[in-house]
Amino acid sequence: MSLIVQKFGGTSVGDPQRIRAVARRVAQAAEAHEVAVVVSAMAGETDALAALARELGGPAPDPRETDALLATGEQKSSALLCLALRQLGRPARSFTGVQMGLRTDAAHTRARIRGIDAERIRAVLQSGAVAVLAGFQGADAEGNITTLGRGGSDTSAVAVACALGADVCEIYTDVDGVFTADPNQVPAARKLDAISYDEMIEVASLGAKVLQIRSVKFAMRYGMPIHVRSAFHGAAGTRVVAEESVMEKLVVSGVTCDRNQAKIRVSGVKDQPGVAAELFGPLAEAEIVVDMIVQNTAHDGSTDMTFTVPQGDCPRALEISQRVGPLLGGSSVESDEGISKVSVVGLGMKDHAGVASRMFRILADEGINIQMIGTSEIKISVVIEEKYTELALRALHAAFMESGF
Amino acid sequence: MSLIVQKFGGTSVGDPQRIRAVARRVAQAAEAHEVAVVVSAMAGETDALAALARELGGPAPDPRETDALLATGEQKSSALLCLALRQLGRPARSFTGVQMGLRTDAAHTRARIRGIDAERIRAVLQSGAVAVLAGFQGADAEGNITTLGRGGSDTSAVAVACALGADVCEIYTDVDGVFTADPNQVPAARKLDAISYDEMIEVASLGAKVLQIRSVKFAMRYGMPIHVRSAFHGAAGTRVVAEESVMEKLVVSGVTCDRNQAKIRVSGVKDQPGVAAELFGPLAEAEIVVDMIVQNTAHDGSTDMTFTVPQGDCPRALEISQRVGPLLGGSSVESDEGISKVSVVGLGMKDHAGVASRMFRILADEGINIQMIGTSEIKISVVIEEKYTELALRALHAAFMESGF
Repeated sequence: MSLIVQKFGGTSVGDPQRIRAVARRVAQAAEAHEVAVVVSAMAGETDALAALARELGGPAPDPRETDALLATGEQKSSALLCLALRQLGRPARSFTGVQMGLRTDAAHTRARIRGIDAERIRAVLQSGAVAVLAGFQGADAEGNITTLGRGGSDTSAVAVACALGADVCEIYTDVDGVFTADPNQVPAARKLDAISYDEMIEVASLGAKVLQIRSVKFAMRYGMPIHVRSAFHGAAGTRVVAEESVMEKLVVSGVTCDRNQAKIRVSGVKDQPGVAAELFGPLAEAEIVVDMIVQNTAHDGSTDMTFTVPQGDCPRALEISQRVGPLLGGSSVESDEGISKVSVVGLGMKDHAGVASRMFRILADEGINIQMIGTSEIKISVVIEEKYTELALRALHAAFMESGF
Repeated sequence: MSLIVQKFGGTSVGDPQRIRAVARRVAQAAEAHEVAVVVSAMAGETDALAALARELGGPAPDPRETDALLATGEQKSSALLCLALRQLGRPARSFTGVQMGLRTDAAHTRARIRGIDAERIRAVLQSGAVAVLAGFQGADAEGNITTLGRGGSDTSAVAVACALGADVCEIYTDVDGVFTADPNQVPAARKLDAISYDEMIEVASLGAKVLQIRSVKFAMRYGMPIHVRSAFHGAAGTRVVAEESVMEKLVVSGVTCDRNQAKIRVSGVKDQPGVAAELFGPLAEAEIVVDMIVQNTAHDGSTDMTFTVPQGDCPRALEISQRVGPLLGGSSVESDEGISKVSVVGLGMKDHAGVASRMFRILADEGINIQMIGTSEIKISVVIEEKYTELALRALHAAFMESGF
């Protein structure tokens, strides 16, 4: 008998009616498979709890207590799903993070998984019942409740699938799978049947919300196939698998954008060793994630340092840059939130020259100016003025995905 | 340094503002004492969760999952109180039932406490922090979450106080203490400074909502003093203590009523051994709590059996009686929900004759007919027509509590 791990997000368990629909879906799968289900908190619950935490605990509420508070959301939805399953005549048993033996480090609100002692889950599955697991949570060595950070339920699901040696980890979502671009922005976008872990990681890190990046890294490490599919119908979605299992190797498998970036430029800093470290050290200490970094050296021995950060961190990043910049000889510091990062991702790029130059040409033909460029083995990203985002996406999608390139 | 356990109910932690008020109160106590706090779920939360459980799990939702669901209410309020305490600069640490080592049997939704492994609580107290404990919950030997039944937080508080060897268990409530009668019904009622465990158990079992009866039994067994006091001001409330510690030994220390009873009469059953067992056996199996039982034997060898049950159980109890009654020769079965049980309670009755006859005389003087009578060592209860309840309460209070009797 095969073993499947299914994960349902907050929207799928957002109210009693939807929980019943999920229960029907799970019960159907349980006719033919052993099934462990991982659930998120009901939609809106985590935000409401986090708001309460800030109301009583201030802007930076104590992380241990925040975790104890937030974890109630998934405990609640997992118990409710069990009740709905039992109403369908399907035995089911809920597990909190502690009960499922999900061990983490002690980094509250963003804990890393250390391991899973899955005996109790396995015993429940072997008894013929469905195991319903509270996502997003675990416990540290002291038994304190920890959470894995936003989107942690995906990671819980993949980790449980790996620990159980499941055949597949199904991630149910409100979209049909992974698309070549966001269908809301690029009407011609089409669903991919399969995508490699590497591509999925790039796509996820570039702002696609469909799958949490840590969960994909986890799946890649253990070779666990993920199936991203719709919670609303039974059609197959997109399989996220090892590169060698992807049949249709596209040069570019996706075009994506991230509007949530801001750009900061520190002009005229000294061009000498250690300057970058002095600037980015304080940003790292402030836990600001810097994404793209570009450095242009001028003839006069000075250099411009430009980088992007999440928009929400821009004010703090600007403040730090304004403090540190002058110490490095910087003449001015400016920020720009009106930008967007547009990327093309694809395994085929590795051995297919000319993708970058073609991308730049397409953008030039549309009259879009490129402000920054960043590349990886399977990705090219450019920063452009935000208002050109959709134009860029559609033009790139048409050229790379809809033509015979 | 003395050690105090404080318990705050759902109303006291009903919203963020009230949680902050509780935090100030706890922080103040923590200046001079080691303090462990037990909290209920925010007012309304348990009912809302129970409604969700019925919506998804049917009229009798699975008890294990119901417990996992309900327990989130107290986990949430305990974490929130910790956050509020920390904002006041007072270190605090929340504990779930599992974390506080509160071991119970496996009787979900009405578990009994087996013991408390209080080392972790003690370590937190010794570190100078406040321990904030989720009331109402524990875990069975398998690590399943259990709950102690309605009002279980009082029992949690007393049990923790006993396990820690606390100096006192303070129960904070929305009334000022234990009164000689319900002030809403008897304006002349006055607050008692102290009451014995025995009296409190009678008063609680007679419908006074101020303290959960199991918690008083627990306190009595371990000799743990309880202090019932107002959550809204600092004045002393009522101490619940051993009989020998009650200074002012009143003949009658309270007059109380229970309007939530219904009466069932099975007429003309055979007057022979085993009849009572045959009737009350099936009621016990249906988990219906029978309170008063009166049997009148007639000359003709038949007898009338009258008993009271909680109003909510009346339809089921009636159905069972109608089924069993005829088998016992019963000629008719009838029920009456329009009744009320009025009681006087007092240690002094033990060695003070005439309380019963005086009670009957007072009621007769008001023209109130007595339908049933029940007595214990320190209590006399009568069942009367419900509409006379307040009249009876006031007359009895005036005679026993306000005169020089």
